[in-house]
Amino acid sequence: MTMAYAHLVKPDSKTRLDDVDAGSHAGLSEEEAMAKLDKLGERMADLQELLFAAKQNSLLIVLQGRDTSGKDGSIRRMLHYCNVQSSRVASFKEPTELEASHDFLWRVHREVPAKGDVVVFNRSHYEDVLVVRVHKLVPKKLWKARYDQINAFEDTLVSSGTILLKFYLHISKGEQEKRLLAREENPDKAFKLSLSDWKERECWDDYTEAFDDALDKCSTKHAPWYIVPANHKWFRDLAITQAVVDALDPYAKDWHDALKDRGKKEKLEIEAYRASEGIKLPS
Amino acid sequence: MTMAYAHLVKPDSKTRLDDVDAGSHAGLSEEEAMAKLDKLGERMADLQELLFAAKQNSLLIVLQGRDTSGKDGSIRRMLHYCNVQSSRVASFKEPTELEASHDFLWRVHREVPAKGDVVVFNRSHYEDVLVVRVHKLVPKKLWKARYDQINAFEDTLVSSGTILLKFYLHISKGEQEKRLLAREENPDKAFKLSLSDWKERECWDDYTEAFDDALDKCSTKHAPWYIVPANHKWFRDLAITQAVVDALDPYAKDWHDALKDRGKKEKLEIEAYRASEGIKLPS
Repeated sequence: MTMAYAHLVKPDSKTRLDDVDAGSHAGLSEEEAMAKLDKLGERMADLQELLFAAKQNSLLIVLQGRDTSGKDGSIRRMLHYCNVQSSRVASFKEPTELEASHDFLWRVHREVPAKGDVVVFNRSHYEDVLVVRVHKLVPKKLWKARYDQINAFEDTLVSSGTILLKFYLHISKGEQEKRLLAREENPDKAFKLSLSDWKERECWDDYTEAFDDALDKCSTKHAPWYIVPANHKWFRDLAITQAVVDALDPYAKDWHDALKDRGKKEKLEIEAYRASEGIKLPS
Repeated sequence: MTMAYAHLVKPDSKTRLDDVDAGSHAGLSEEEAMAKLDKLGERMADLQELLFAAKQNSLLIVLQGRDTSGKDGSIRRMLHYCNVQSSRVASFKEPTELEASHDFLWRVHREVPAKGDVVVFNRSHYEDVLVVRVHKLVPKKLWKARYDQINAFEDTLVSSGTILLKFYLHISKGEQEKRLLAREENPDKAFKLSLSDWKERECWDDYTEAFDDALDKCSTKHAPWYIVPANHKWFRDLAITQAVVDALDPYAKDWHDALKDRGKKEKLEIEAYRASEGIKLPS
């Protein structure tokens, strides 16, 4: 395993977002980071193909972060390395009427990946201890109980073969302002403008507290949270890709062996069929 | 509109697959085709972003073709130009028990794109007049009635703003044999080996007849079928991308205008909010 660029939140470590530099880039230049990312991306593509073909595990990536923190961009980069047929994004916005009439895990459970698949959650069940907590959408007693419920739910997924990684995209308050204003200046991005982004920004510190708690209470050995310095987009993408590759690498040999066995068996059956049907091949 | 590389099946034109050269490449070299594809891909990406943002229409691409005809590869290429968050693949394999206990359009209807989205069908409701017909899985009376049912269903989608394009990936029998055998030679592709591919190959002519009928009866002005010469992968991708870009282009101006109006309105609201809250911006 090489150097980690994302900050792993160790269980019960009382890590605070404000202690992690959102502008960090581990001393790398953009050019150096992109060169590393290119190499990692190739490895990622190989690993995803093995995951897909072997069908022994699935990969669930959870992305959380404030408005403009780069969730969309990270997803584009990550899925760029994946087979489109077995990977997809599930976005969780304000619950629909049907979703709201169920428990908070119902809508996310429906979207978890099947064996062989990759799913990226753009926001997730964590919204129910974030926006819900900040805006007091349910009584404190209810959202307080959710951390344990989330841990048990994620444990169920992992026990069934899901590889589960959670990333908090960490931008500074100044960087968010810059990005929001840039949208106003660019007519082609104007459709992304939203008054609610400015309103949510007024609750910056309440969100920090809610994120701190979620990361602290729900980073477990088998479903870890990573804090990703995200002021620099190129470093953000490098850090996420590195963490994903490091998580998948230990499985590669098993997947590969399973596939080789399966291929051998099918080839024997095809040869027997051709012989029995008298099918001739070009020499 | 530039030259079309895919063969549009005109309604009631009695086009026969055997009359279309699967090895056609319109006189282009691979290098020339790839250069054209690069340019078209950029245009495609722009059009998809407009489609997504404007949310006035959706895009549904149906892919059919025999085993090894390149459905997976075409999908990878096509979605490479699309935002992963608003585009996905729906694959239709042998129906599950739940799917089989509904009418044949039920499972596909659930997967059609919402406004703004792109969905590619890897196989589709056409299987119910293809494999179902060839292997006599339902009485003739039932599958015969399906052509009209399909046309009415597709008409419903188009009436609601769906742009619907259907591509038959056309490979020759010799090319299929080459591709099947190549899989046996490559241990990394061995997991794709399937005895059923060889069994289906024995029904080549029955499938040709079924495809001919489906294309003939279900190519309509608003939901056309295209026959794509697919012996050359690079020409196949060029032909599909060209047809998609040609279909989206006429909508671009409308989408663009709608977005500009929306952005202007939101910007005014944000400025009013900042003024009322006394939020100061960096000068």
